[in-house]
Amino acid sequence: MGLTAAGGDMIAVMRHDCPVCRSEGLGSRAQVVLRAGGREAVVSLLHSSGDTPDPGEIGLSETAWARLGVKAGDRVEVAHAPPLASLRAVRRRIYGERLSQAAFSAIVADIAEHRYSDVHLSAFVTACSAAPLDQAETIGLTKAMVEVGEQLSWPGPIVVDKHSVGGLPGNRTTPIIVSIMAAEGLVMPKTSSRAITSPAGTADTMEVLAPVDLDIAAIRRVVAREGGCIAWGGAVRLSPADDVIIGVERALDIDAVGQLVASVLSKKIAAGATHLVIDVPVGPTAKVRSLEAARDLEAALTSVAAAFGLRTRVMYGPGAEPIGRGIGPALEALDILAVLQGEPGVEDLAHRACELAGGLFELAGVAAPGAGLARARQSLESGRAWAKFKRICQAQGGMRSPPVARFQRDLTAPSSGRIASIDNRKLATVAKLAGAPMAKAAGVAVHARLGQLIVAGSPLCTLHAESPGELDYAAAFALSDGAIFAIAAP
Amino acid sequence: MGLTAAGGDMIAVMRHDCPVCRSEGLGSRAQVVLRAGGREAVVSLLHSSGDTPDPGEIGLSETAWARLGVKAGDRVEVAHAPPLASLRAVRRRIYGERLSQAAFSAIVADIAEHRYSDVHLSAFVTACSAAPLDQAETIGLTKAMVEVGEQLSWPGPIVVDKHSVGGLPGNRTTPIIVSIMAAEGLVMPKTSSRAITSPAGTADTMEVLAPVDLDIAAIRRVVAREGGCIAWGGAVRLSPADDVIIGVERALDIDAVGQLVASVLSKKIAAGATHLVIDVPVGPTAKVRSLEAARDLEAALTSVAAAFGLRTRVMYGPGAEPIGRGIGPALEALDILAVLQGEPGVEDLAHRACELAGGLFELAGVAAPGAGLARARQSLESGRAWAKFKRICQAQGGMRSPPVARFQRDLTAPSSGRIASIDNRKLATVAKLAGAPMAKAAGVAVHARLGQLIVAGSPLCTLHAESPGELDYAAAFALSDGAIFAIAAP
Repeated sequence: MGLTAAGGDMIAVMRHDCPVCRSEGLGSRAQVVLRAGGREAVVSLLHSSGDTPDPGEIGLSETAWARLGVKAGDRVEVAHAPPLASLRAVRRRIYGERLSQAAFSAIVADIAEHRYSDVHLSAFVTACSAAPLDQAETIGLTKAMVEVGEQLSWPGPIVVDKHSVGGLPGNRTTPIIVSIMAAEGLVMPKTSSRAITSPAGTADTMEVLAPVDLDIAAIRRVVAREGGCIAWGGAVRLSPADDVIIGVERALDIDAVGQLVASVLSKKIAAGATHLVIDVPVGPTAKVRSLEAARDLEAALTSVAAAFGLRTRVMYGPGAEPIGRGIGPALEALDILAVLQGEPGVEDLAHRACELAGGLFELAGVAAPGAGLARARQSLESGRAWAKFKRICQAQGGMRSPPVARFQRDLTAPSSGRIASIDNRKLATVAKLAGAPMAKAAGVAVHARLGQLIVAGSPLCTLHAESPGELDYAAAFALSDGAIFAIAAP
Repeated sequence: MGLTAAGGDMIAVMRHDCPVCRSEGLGSRAQVVLRAGGREAVVSLLHSSGDTPDPGEIGLSETAWARLGVKAGDRVEVAHAPPLASLRAVRRRIYGERLSQAAFSAIVADIAEHRYSDVHLSAFVTACSAAPLDQAETIGLTKAMVEVGEQLSWPGPIVVDKHSVGGLPGNRTTPIIVSIMAAEGLVMPKTSSRAITSPAGTADTMEVLAPVDLDIAAIRRVVAREGGCIAWGGAVRLSPADDVIIGVERALDIDAVGQLVASVLSKKIAAGATHLVIDVPVGPTAKVRSLEAARDLEAALTSVAAAFGLRTRVMYGPGAEPIGRGIGPALEALDILAVLQGEPGVEDLAHRACELAGGLFELAGVAAPGAGLARARQSLESGRAWAKFKRICQAQGGMRSPPVARFQRDLTAPSSGRIASIDNRKLATVAKLAGAPMAKAAGVAVHARLGQLIVAGSPLCTLHAESPGELDYAAAFALSDGAIFAIAAP
């Protein structure tokens, strides 16, 4: 077998009438512990009523298979998983009690080890949303999430970092900011994620330009040499419970402030950051939709970060339209190259990257208040950031050229007028249907900007795909009900 | 395939690199809709990274297979399931809003159709526990649960019913009460459940004595002829969302009053009951552990039942030790036969059955207040109840003799003294390890009673099993740490 699912992907399948299930009373959905050759793993049991596996046999997901280190035909011992003591704390939280640091540590350790089923995970997430985490609890959860994973440390007193709360297509400022910071002598060991529900994560985009799959030793080597890196965080296991919890929040489509704060800060604290700028785009289809919500988030982020000695600055930004032209790994990579090389057409991305880099300069005390933006601009315009970016790519394994999609199609304006609004969510979906992020060259290049005057028949955006089927598919969805670009009569 | 799991068992498996998953962005744990030959089904998608199924193929659980009516090689269309509108209500409930009748109806309909994943189910259950259901909400949930399933109606103004909140081994009063009620001319069309986590459900026990797998037509026929039946409820689909919700509550080990009330009452209202007695054993290892908790439950049960015109009486009972001698289907069936035939040794079971039957007589206005118990006793002692029970068994398909376990072993007192306490939960586990309820003859026959003086070496209970392995297994657990029978020095 090789099943993956759920909060974890630790799954076993046994026949419902298997004598082991019968005598042990192992029902479907039970958490069971498997033991083989001195190793053990807790998995979710699914009953099968089909032909496989045979009674007395067990099928394992690949993760469980690897964790146990077994091969076909090996003996595996199966028993009820010991009751999870930390679930008592989850129940107390459901009934309104506040949880201690120790309780969060126990819960998060079990989550990181994939001992919680989806039912348990969802109960924890829901309970912490129904009665929102207070500040002490948010600190407790953050600390627990940091401690359960790897923790990096760096020589020198200042380690800068950047996070974007996201929800906006494009907006791929990270590689630019790292280049500026490292070019100006600051340390910025950046780990980023791959896309989960978006058309590209920073790691997907950066991978178009250089290898990103670095282990801790490689990250240390690159940072020692160049002062910065742009690596995929997946090999590093910073705050491993975070990915599990985020998966559940996504399935529920809920975003509680306390959990968002713990999620963002735990990864940064574990990465050894001392100064952090947080990009919060505010807009009708961004993750944060009102300035009031943004202020609540800012207050929670800065107060909790302070408890860990992490200096944090939240910087609001525009969130009504994509930043940069490209959506999808290669198209976003082209935007980054254009900014670093001073080419025209990506001024919005260059400006936002310099604002955030400037904020970091000021936060770290490297630039006087108000002087950060100019310092970042200078780094970019002098070519120092571009030179640094190329050196970082070399250190990560060699620079690459972004691929170009074989199949492209323009979507044109059905009428003349002014661009009144852009549906960022639909844009992101179109880019995914075109194949992003798995098809690196796929995505959408956006030409029209908010407020721009458009003539009927001129291109609003261009779809890029690596197969004609995906191009058709994305185009059909783009043209289905609800225009991506709303055009107001001139 | 033939997987079963979770809130439902609607599951599909596709390769993670299947082009359909890729272009549609169908992640593991996604809810997807399958369409084939004009039928459709919503299933939880699991990604496989193993050899099967092939990319472009899909594996289905048996339920999904049956729902779609497909055969191997058929074309199946796969798409993201439409977002569940009722999840918006769940999110509102998480954030503290009270839900309307319409919201509960939408949620419960989706649950009954297995459209909720475990994550969604757990969020709903947790949210309704974190901020407990108020009375209006409990009524709303109950009504929604009734309406989503079958609803039975019966000629005549009085239809009596009985429920036990459970948690006590043995206590198999239902077949006795039905026999008494029907013998005295009342209508009691009883549907019961099979064991889920206990060593026997009423349906498992009754099945030892007569067929219980009756459809609605058969139930009507038996009740028309004899006034009562003792059938398995599984074929009837009364309050089908209840089983799904209970499964989640069990995984979380939480029991919220509002949900318990909706669970109990929805099945009874759907079954057409007009007068209901609820047996609430109160004891340290019973489901209700204090008189205070029992009073809260009683207030909620009677007030919500009244809103549906269902007259309800809660009757507290002893909950410190098993009622009857047997634990397990056949052993409990023998107790029932002993009570009905007036044999000695099961006075506690006879008394509790008559108390509850007497309560029903009084509630239904058939006996004056205080005269119910005597009326029930008379029905039992006259042999009328026994005659009626035999006729009901005949009507259900013919009476059977309980099987006797081939392998038995006494557990004896390690010291002399008085029985100070009995661990009911461990007793139940021992009965299950011995093979109950799947092995009908398996279980535990309890000989020692609370307060009884015991001589070292005399039997406390006898384990019954259908295989020597299960007997050994149950005995080993029974003798492991934590005695089932605590013996105080004389």
